[in-house]
Amino acid sequence: MQKDTPVILITNDDGITAPGIRALVDAARGLGRVVVVAPDSPQSGMGHAITIGQPLRLDKVEMFDGIESWQCSGTPADCVKLARDKILHVQPDICLSGINHGANHSINVIYSGTMSAAMEAAIEGIPSIGFSSLDYGFNVDFTVAAQVARQLAIKMLSQKMPDHILLNVNIPIVTPETFKGLKICRQAYAKWEEQFDHRKDPRGKDYYWMVGRFINMDTGTGTDVEALKEGYASVVPVTIDFTDRKAKEWLEKEWQF
Amino acid sequence: MQKDTPVILITNDDGITAPGIRALVDAARGLGRVVVVAPDSPQSGMGHAITIGQPLRLDKVEMFDGIESWQCSGTPADCVKLARDKILHVQPDICLSGINHGANHSINVIYSGTMSAAMEAAIEGIPSIGFSSLDYGFNVDFTVAAQVARQLAIKMLSQKMPDHILLNVNIPIVTPETFKGLKICRQAYAKWEEQFDHRKDPRGKDYYWMVGRFINMDTGTGTDVEALKEGYASVVPVTIDFTDRKAKEWLEKEWQF
Repeated sequence: MQKDTPVILITNDDGITAPGIRALVDAARGLGRVVVVAPDSPQSGMGHAITIGQPLRLDKVEMFDGIESWQCSGTPADCVKLARDKILHVQPDICLSGINHGANHSINVIYSGTMSAAMEAAIEGIPSIGFSSLDYGFNVDFTVAAQVARQLAIKMLSQKMPDHILLNVNIPIVTPETFKGLKICRQAYAKWEEQFDHRKDPRGKDYYWMVGRFINMDTGTGTDVEALKEGYASVVPVTIDFTDRKAKEWLEKEWQF
Repeated sequence: MQKDTPVILITNDDGITAPGIRALVDAARGLGRVVVVAPDSPQSGMGHAITIGQPLRLDKVEMFDGIESWQCSGTPADCVKLARDKILHVQPDICLSGINHGANHSINVIYSGTMSAAMEAAIEGIPSIGFSSLDYGFNVDFTVAAQVARQLAIKMLSQKMPDHILLNVNIPIVTPETFKGLKICRQAYAKWEEQFDHRKDPRGKDYYWMVGRFINMDTGTGTDVEALKEGYASVVPVTIDFTDRKAKEWLEKEWQF
């Protein structure tokens, strides 16, 4: 393999058998040395969890024709850490995560295993993108999402990117004909309004299922939620510096220690 | 109870039996109606995980003399969600998380269950603070940390705070005599350099333990890492809007879709 062949690390949070990661692998074919390291089971809602209390398993698998693939017992963030240290032994040129079966726009970025894998890569200085389809189904039509993934991977590979660049890309439920294109957005202010479905188990003990309703509380423009509603794929650059600069200014003025 | 008695929700990620949460409960005594909802087992490294794939248990316990307390089978973020919907039925005035046994400064904010509970509260609009001691031990001397927690809780309760305010507070290993006080900081750019301790199980199969070394790569001033080194407790306001504004400007200039 030529020395300038880019190394492309692919992972996800729905697990290595999910149709979404297969669509992403196919989208990346031919762009470089593609290596898949993904969880061996679904990890949705894992946020940026890492596994420190138990050991990790890592096994080579045959999943994607001609593509080196590994499954890992850990979280998406674990997969990125293990991939770099135990499999690649080099810094990948880009990391692609997804395609997630379900939306990760706005506040979902914090709950999302898909985005946590991409964020882990960005912390390491690997330009990375998380892809999510708004379609939660198993039999999602990933045609548009895969086109978007390939387009952005090529763009990221062909250009010097800013340090720690990390993109949260969500794809609406559209056909190639109704798809409006890509839009650079900011994260909408939204939240989940939780309700807990209260039940009794066969022994009469209480338990709860988390259910929730997504509420967009953002009345401004330029948000990912807005773009998706209009039929665009949203592209939100995500920071790994969580300092709230406005709140910091306020505290420096108002709080004397 | 008077209507203007503040409601103070306390949680953590080391679990309800950890000495750190007991120190925090004692620090908050007398400041309002204190209610504890915390994981029934340690949840360190859980990041912002939420539990959607299995049901949650929630049980009332007697742990802290005269303080209403519940243990939950879920993650720190689950605890905050459940507390609001199933226990308090009102918006708490503040949420305090910790005191964590171990540092959560700089990039640790993303891996930290302590901070994820506080972040979940902030998303809900509850002013919140996560407290962490740099001492990883079980028998930590929480004297200074508890003083800091009480001081900041009183400050937050006595003042109209900015929307979605969320503070990441870390306390160095100091005595009341050597403690320098509080300092408002920004998050240092740092990362964990992972290594995986490779072993074979009794059946000859490979497994890996994650081990890591924390590296501060930030050469600037005003960071939490710097303040802690000098003997200050660091106070970093944390955002729930992860849009990278600088990267967004760059993309808008460089990427035409």
